Amino acid sequence: MSFYDKYISITKAHQSFVCVGLDSDHQKLPMCLSKEENPQLIFNKRIIDATYKYTAAFKPNFAFYIAQGIFGVETLHKTMEYIPKEIPTIIDIKAGDIGNTMVQYAQAFFTHFRADAITINTLMGADVIKACLSVENTFAFALAITSNPSADDFLKHGDLYKKIAQMIADGGQECLGAVVGATQEGDLSIMRELMPKTIFLIPGVGAQGGNLGAVCKYAKHTTEEPMFLINSSRDIIFADNLSGFAITAMQKTVSLKDEINRSLGY
Amino acid sequence: MSFYDKYISITKAHQSFVCVGLDSDHQKLPMCLSKEENPQLIFNKRIIDATYKYTAAFKPNFAFYIAQGIFGVETLHKTMEYIPKEIPTIIDIKAGDIGNTMVQYAQAFFTHFRADAITINTLMGADVIKACLSVENTFAFALAITSNPSADDFLKHGDLYKKIAQMIADGGQECLGAVVGATQEGDLSIMRELMPKTIFLIPGVGAQGGNLGAVCKYAKHTTEEPMFLINSSRDIIFADNLSGFAITAMQKTVSLKDEINRSLGY
Repeated sequence: MSFYDKYISITKAHQSFVCVGLDSDHQKLPMCLSKEENPQLIFNKRIIDATYKYTAAFKPNFAFYIAQGIFGVETLHKTMEYIPKEIPTIIDIKAGDIGNTMVQYAQAFFTHFRADAITINTLMGADVIKACLSVENTFAFALAITSNPSADDFLKHGDLYKKIAQMIADGGQECLGAVVGATQEGDLSIMRELMPKTIFLIPGVGAQGGNLGAVCKYAKHTTEEPMFLINSSRDIIFADNLSGFAITAMQKTVSLKDEINRSLGY
Repeated sequence: MSFYDKYISITKAHQSFVCVGLDSDHQKLPMCLSKEENPQLIFNKRIIDATYKYTAAFKPNFAFYIAQGIFGVETLHKTMEYIPKEIPTIIDIKAGDIGNTMVQYAQAFFTHFRADAITINTLMGADVIKACLSVENTFAFALAITSNPSADDFLKHGDLYKKIAQMIADGGQECLGAVVGATQEGDLSIMRELMPKTIFLIPGVGAQGGNLGAVCKYAKHTTEEPMFLINSSRDIIFADNLSGFAITAMQKTVSLKDEINRSLGY
């Protein structure tokens, strides 16, 4: 089942547009796990167990696993295996290479790690998308506009983000999504106009300061399903660093899910 | 010893500006290695043994290792350990994240894998560079202009590549280098003008069609050392797929080294 189909099905089934970011920084894990053989893996399993019924996707960021070397990559692999098959997964790697090299990334993340989607960086142009999608039945979220302070340096240079958005829209909504930073409220409606049917992956709500009401208002698709995922990482997984961390993560997920649904008028 | 110092020292000692790209695609390895427990690792070791005296750097591309999953990441780790300490290493990962996430990449590649440098993608702006260089004594090659067919899509949009070049130059030559695609001859002199002292990492000579004479003419620093690395991957490591592959790789490396030196008038 493709990422796109899983997305459509799970958002209906769970009535949720929450993506839980598994940015499981090993230095921030609850003390109560410190005696485990692999605290990062146990942490992820308990977060997944507690939240999966209320999420529309899980998104581990590759950096937080490779930071632990080979051991960390193994943790990512086991985490991916543990996520229930009906929940779409996105590996956040921001891969941006071309030709045969990009095909290697696609094979790595779609085949070895069984991700349903990955994030990509298209600075090198259309070749990045072409190579990534040459592997059948894949889905990629391309960076369109991000939520970090220096996002304007290059992405806003000569309205580059609009040109990228156009390329994403042209690629078709069933294989390409867009990363749209939520702190740029004004841009959300421009992005939706340029990519009317594209699934948006929206980071930056919460810790990075994006306003949820505005995000839901401007990012949703006008007539159909909202067609977005609102990602929250630290605010969910590290909301509590005591032994009840998983329950707190569950409560935070439910509360974000409900707040999004209220904003959408559901 | 920093990447910059290693570069200055090895280019003098080896009279070489050749970077050997260890894009060791497991599907292209010589048949004679197929019975080895880890053909990719044995291949890399034999290529390194045969070429290191004539090279100025080794550059494994991360994609060709993660494509083999955990096993491949282990191969990369062992390859990095095997490279003689005096030869600068660059892990080609084109990492492009921000803040704490980018710091994780820096820790992974500089600490765990002991790379002297990595490649980065600055689409998300100055934050990428800032986070990467927050780890002491590191060096990053940022994509400035690439050699693939669609490089013009975004990098040339509103002369974005010139803006990126300016940021690289401002970062200082001892911690920032630039990836400058060699097929764009006309651009090489513009890039050198904007980044007079920056080390260029130049892919695209050979397999991708860049002209070596023109590259040496336009990319070299006007008064001092040439300040570049010319990368060759497939043309060296896969020049021969029979049992003499390492000797052929050595010959190809020497021949490229000599050709560069001739072009430079050495």
